[in-house]
Amino acid sequence: MSKLQNIKGMRDHLGQAMLLRQHIVAVLTQVAERHGFEPLQTPVVEYAELLEGKLGDDEKLIYRFEDNGGRRLALRYDQTVPLARVVAQYAGQLMFPWRRYAYGPSYRGERPARGRYREFYQFDADIVGSASPLADAEIVAILTESLEALGFPGFTTLLNHRQVIGGIARASGLDETVAGGVYRSIDKFDKLGADGVREELLKMGVAPESAAQILALVQIDGDPHDVLEELSGRLGDDERAAQALENLRAVIGGLVEMGVAPERYKVAPRLARGLSYYTGLVFEAATPHWPEGSLLGGGRYDELIGQFAGRAIPTVGLAFGIDRLHDVMDELGLGPRLASTATAYVTIFAAGLEADSLALARELRAGGVNTLISLEAGGGLGKQLKDADRKGVRFALVLGPDELARGEVVLKDLRGGAQRSVARGEVVAVIADSR
Amino acid sequence: MSKLQNIKGMRDHLGQAMLLRQHIVAVLTQVAERHGFEPLQTPVVEYAELLEGKLGDDEKLIYRFEDNGGRRLALRYDQTVPLARVVAQYAGQLMFPWRRYAYGPSYRGERPARGRYREFYQFDADIVGSASPLADAEIVAILTESLEALGFPGFTTLLNHRQVIGGIARASGLDETVAGGVYRSIDKFDKLGADGVREELLKMGVAPESAAQILALVQIDGDPHDVLEELSGRLGDDERAAQALENLRAVIGGLVEMGVAPERYKVAPRLARGLSYYTGLVFEAATPHWPEGSLLGGGRYDELIGQFAGRAIPTVGLAFGIDRLHDVMDELGLGPRLASTATAYVTIFAAGLEADSLALARELRAGGVNTLISLEAGGGLGKQLKDADRKGVRFALVLGPDELARGEVVLKDLRGGAQRSVARGEVVAVIADSR
Repeated sequence: MSKLQNIKGMRDHLGQAMLLRQHIVAVLTQVAERHGFEPLQTPVVEYAELLEGKLGDDEKLIYRFEDNGGRRLALRYDQTVPLARVVAQYAGQLMFPWRRYAYGPSYRGERPARGRYREFYQFDADIVGSASPLADAEIVAILTESLEALGFPGFTTLLNHRQVIGGIARASGLDETVAGGVYRSIDKFDKLGADGVREELLKMGVAPESAAQILALVQIDGDPHDVLEELSGRLGDDERAAQALENLRAVIGGLVEMGVAPERYKVAPRLARGLSYYTGLVFEAATPHWPEGSLLGGGRYDELIGQFAGRAIPTVGLAFGIDRLHDVMDELGLGPRLASTATAYVTIFAAGLEADSLALARELRAGGVNTLISLEAGGGLGKQLKDADRKGVRFALVLGPDELARGEVVLKDLRGGAQRSVARGEVVAVIADSR
Repeated sequence: MSKLQNIKGMRDHLGQAMLLRQHIVAVLTQVAERHGFEPLQTPVVEYAELLEGKLGDDEKLIYRFEDNGGRRLALRYDQTVPLARVVAQYAGQLMFPWRRYAYGPSYRGERPARGRYREFYQFDADIVGSASPLADAEIVAILTESLEALGFPGFTTLLNHRQVIGGIARASGLDETVAGGVYRSIDKFDKLGADGVREELLKMGVAPESAAQILALVQIDGDPHDVLEELSGRLGDDERAAQALENLRAVIGGLVEMGVAPERYKVAPRLARGLSYYTGLVFEAATPHWPEGSLLGGGRYDELIGQFAGRAIPTVGLAFGIDRLHDVMDELGLGPRLASTATAYVTIFAAGLEADSLALARELRAGGVNTLISLEAGGGLGKQLKDADRKGVRFALVLGPDELARGEVVLKDLRGGAQRSVARGEVVAVIADSR
């Protein structure tokens, strides 16, 4: 039998790694539900037609196939297009603004590389049907609360607006046709530096004085209000840019009112973000402790859903890449390092004494202690204790004839090795206290 | 834009339905972790070759496709073959017995029908690498504890053993070649009745006296120990059947020791279960409150994993079908009927008072209360209260200038409509108390 392998870029998650992933998803779910978001689950498979025509060059990465009925199907490559379909399909029964979260796998036939997977899991949170800047602020607040709850150190969210970037392009005398390429270059600012971006701009035919102007504008930095002031002074004649700056002021006002700490965000005119469907706020969070790239991002997209639903449905949202968060947390040593779901391991002292050990395991479980049992008395106590230790369980319990006679249990702390006798009725409390 | 539809047999889950599904999965996860099971997540996509050759006639139901590199891939149709792959691939790092649970979607291109879906979610729990009857008993205990925790009324798990059925076939003088068909007929006993099964047996060429003998044996019923006694008397000369009955006795001994209530299980020689890979215990749970079929099943399969791993790795497990549980719970009115994840809805009294309401929402969330906020003061208070009510939120909170001056909040119970003023610092406790 060959092919006893997972497909490259589609990973198995076992043991401690999977427990960390579940922890991440549980934290993100809790924060989203604290804000009253509702879960949505859509199929992994959609009609290919629904997914086509939106990814440009990346369209070839979609996994497509025909079913037995000749229908053209595809694996979803994100959870946003399915969200748009759901809004169109169930418009009558949804109540806007609709806050929904979604967690699940998506697929792109990328060349696998460090941090790039063909099967990847995302946790999305979106507010559908509100143009209010408070909706934008709530999404950024969720981002902040989530990364704080996960323990990320020193992260900052960069905020920008599509029409600030548009304004910069217009103020620099750029032709609309090259603007897309310019945005992509600006987006690489943190990677290429000012000189690198200038070089790229000149290569694509941007005049040197325009390039200089663009670079001066995208490097404006400082306190959010100062940055907005400065940009207003230099882009204020451009009506769309002026409105965008006003919108950013309102979003930041919301962040202040929602209690998001000021060191957690900045206005960064250099932030472009690749996706063409954004129409307003764009944002990206990063931490200097992981300089390889951003942790996640999102933004406002007021037109995408309307393309499906047939009427404008303004929406703002974000997507946490679970694989990215997992990789970074793993590297930075964040989050719990659980070796096992179990806290206790009940041994079987000898054949014939199964019943008492199994009753003890039942008592522990009823007391909320996750408990493994030995399945064989035959192996001997030493082998069972070794098994408990190798599995990373904290406590091993032994119930021999002497303990039974005294109504006690031997409790062995495998972290350190200390052991003591504990009254049977107190063992749950003792374990709960020592965790 | 056409195709604004989910694919038939692959469902969207919104709102209350999705909250019920999450509740089911959370309960199953908790029970499995109480027993120290560890999570495993494998990709939805596998090499087609891995999945082929195991489903017989159903093989045509597999969704298969080629990727851009010409690799033949397929969507998994269960989580058992991937488990076998994982055991083979990571044998060196696994510690047996390995208790693992897995939750996720699988795919079969069935003709969609009531209760039959092309995308279906399963929650599997298996003990890999133990032949101990205590492992079988622990799996049945998990089944029992799970259905009890989900609130299923009056369910019973039928237990049988493959070699009891084999013994019945042999004792009735059946040729091995027709045995498979006979098992499939017996499996339909609860649907067809004795006469229906007899008719089928005669049609496939079973002699009338053999059919009578089979029907007499599979109808043995009563207290587990009596059924085992009766079967021993009638099949005891068949060594494999005698061993199987001994094994069932040991499994039932384990169930007693694990505290599984005696009314929760029966020995039922008529239970065959379709899957050919079972080698020992087979079981199925059902409730008379839902007579359409079983709730779930499972069994011991000591050979399947060995086909991949190259050495015998005895395994016992079960699979909860989340869609089945969901459909049944929905129909029987079991489980929570949550309309919303949010308990509180903070209104915005008027433009300019956003800050106070947002601060109140923050206090509620910090106190563990899931809280929605209004995103627009503009709509007026009446519209916001109506929105809160339609969304199924229990409490609406109003913070106007008078309340602000007095340090109070108006708390409106939308279930009943009573409203009262509460000191700002006590509102979390008041909400917690009234839930």
